[in-house]
Amino acid sequence: DSKLKVFSLNSNPGLAEEIADNIGVELGKCTVTSFSDGEIQINIEESIRGCDVYVVQSTCEPVNQHIMELLIMIDALKRASARTINIVMPYYGYARQDRKARAREPITAKLIADLLETAGASRVLMLDLHAPQIQGFFNLPIDHLVGVPILSDYFEEKNFDDLVIVSPDHGGVTRARKMADRLKAPIAIIDKRRPRPNVSEVMNIVGNIEGKTAILIDDIIDTAGTITLAANALVENGATEVYACCTHPVLSGPAIDRIDNSKIKELVVTNTIPLGEEKASDKITELSVAGLISEAIIRVHERQSISILFD
Amino acid sequence: DSKLKVFSLNSNPGLAEEIADNIGVELGKCTVTSFSDGEIQINIEESIRGCDVYVVQSTCEPVNQHIMELLIMIDALKRASARTINIVMPYYGYARQDRKARAREPITAKLIADLLETAGASRVLMLDLHAPQIQGFFNLPIDHLVGVPILSDYFEEKNFDDLVIVSPDHGGVTRARKMADRLKAPIAIIDKRRPRPNVSEVMNIVGNIEGKTAILIDDIIDTAGTITLAANALVENGATEVYACCTHPVLSGPAIDRIDNSKIKELVVTNTIPLGEEKASDKITELSVAGLISEAIIRVHERQSISILFD
Ligand SMILES: Nc1ncnc2c1ncn2[C@@H]1O[C@H](COP(=O)(O)O)[C@@H](O)[C@H]1O
Ligand SMILES: Nc1ncnc2c1ncn2[C@@H]1O[C@H](COP(=O)(O)O)[C@@H](O)[C@H]1O
Repeated sequence: DSKLKVFSLNSNPGLAEEIADNIGVELGKCTVTSFSDGEIQINIEESIRGCDVYVVQSTCEPVNQHIMELLIMIDALKRASARTINIVMPYYGYARQDRKARAREPITAKLIADLLETAGASRVLMLDLHAPQIQGFFNLPIDHLVGVPILSDYFEEKNFDDLVIVSPDHGGVTRARKMADRLKAPIAIIDKRRPRPNVSEVMNIVGNIEGKTAILIDDIIDTAGTITLAANALVENGATEVYACCTHPVLSGPAIDRIDNSKIKELVVTNTIPLGEEKASDKITELSVAGLISEAIIRVHERQSISILFD
Repeated sequence: DSKLKVFSLNSNPGLAEEIADNIGVELGKCTVTSFSDGEIQINIEESIRGCDVYVVQSTCEPVNQHIMELLIMIDALKRASARTINIVMPYYGYARQDRKARAREPITAKLIADLLETAGASRVLMLDLHAPQIQGFFNLPIDHLVGVPILSDYFEEKNFDDLVIVSPDHGGVTRARKMADRLKAPIAIIDKRRPRPNVSEVMNIVGNIEGKTAILIDDIIDTAGTITLAANALVENGATEVYACCTHPVLSGPAIDRIDNSKIKELVVTNTIPLGEEKASDKITELSVAGLISEAIIRVHERQSISILFD
């Protein structure tokens, strides 16, 4: 059987290290630096001829740099005769640009799919895509893992008495439903509405939250506007305490300030995007997806179904 | 006939403005900004349906950002029904990564060609490619313009008495020959050699430079190591004064310091890459390629041969 190798690029070396550890291999030797003028220079320092290579890269900030690193790495691996080039992309950047919402918009999520195929990817493993339709942007096999079990297991251990799982918008109801099933809790939905034009939005809550512990769940938390407003609305409407969780902590701009100043008691995230120093807050708990991803890699490599990982 | 529109991205708005002025059109309305998390957001603010669109973008520093801007813009134009999407790329980033010089290197110049085609480019206009072979990386029509006439015309007006055109390395002899023909001067070549391993390089000069005004010509000046060492060697070997010129002033890292402290009297460059504030030096003269490029665009649009531009 052909050899499995794991390489890390610059976005998420900690997660890549954990994944390699779990699988029981050393991270592949390779340096990804820049020339004086900012062009990316990649040196793969071991033979990968005939190997099944897994490249770990989240396309988080600096997103354009990380995308180019990944494309150039794929090109180098292809020319160095890798047998398969498997992209492990825990966070898929540009996923929110997945349709033309206005005239003359790009569909960058589709462009990224085409670029990865053109560069020479054989397969892509992703986690909690913003829209599952993005799988269809590829003509490659896609393994799509979900973070709900990891987040749910964490909250399960807290043994809350009277729990409700809340989706911060209509788009996230399916996700909230999945978590609610695991935690045997009811769901509620924040139903933002603008009663009249030029009047500010009203946070209407559909479902019963009074006297309950509420857990808000989303896929991405970016500037944290939606989630912190939702948390405050829940408390105002009688929730006893509010937790929040998401798979992808983008946390850009005012996010950390907003979370720190909100009614959110604890924000639980995964390490698909590293938090780094600028994203530190006492309220944030980070869970690792390394176990899930390494299990998936092993099963893919051994030609076993990965559907077991969804139970 | 279909309408010609010129759009600028963020790398070289000054040059794009000049080109649009020369052609006699307004720059297309479009904003290229970033979301809070650094993802590129493009809004094309006028209809381009059925138009021949020219997009001006040099893939200079920050190169990865500029490449992604260009690819996303092409995607947006394609989905907005542009008739043709013509890329005006005065400087082609990653051109030096055009072959595997060592094992397991990427060939990023080819990758970029594939990415542009995948995104949906119809044609690419470029200037002084580092290796003309890069034209063959594309399956699209390429218009390849040269900067030698612009640089030569500038020096012609100086009416030097006793002139020699010098190539700083073997790779640039053809370029030096072209300039020498225009200026009716002989050529010389800097023949760098390492006499024995672990002994520093010797700058051997092939050709007669004594008592002459020397003009060094290169395509790219990046960190300016080669060109400043060459200039100093020319003076040490009897040249009366040394000028230098290039099409693409990358000028990264120590370049400006080296030029300021070298024997180069004047460095003449073009505006394929904007100089900006950090690249200011009293020794640098900037010539515009806007005339050349706009002439080429008009001729392409009117289906006339552009070979006249090479005379
Ligand atoms: N990086 C980003 N940050 C904020 N908004 C974005 C980003 N990328 C795309 N969008 C916008 O988000 C909307 C889609 O988000 P959603 O409705 O949650 O799927 C679209 O209107 C996009 O223009
Ligand atoms: N941006 C860059 N800066 C410096 N060197 C580079 C860059 N890109 C590629 N190279 C190297 O430059 C060499 C090719 O340059 P050349 O011999 O002038 O064609 C190759 O060995 C590349 O590894």
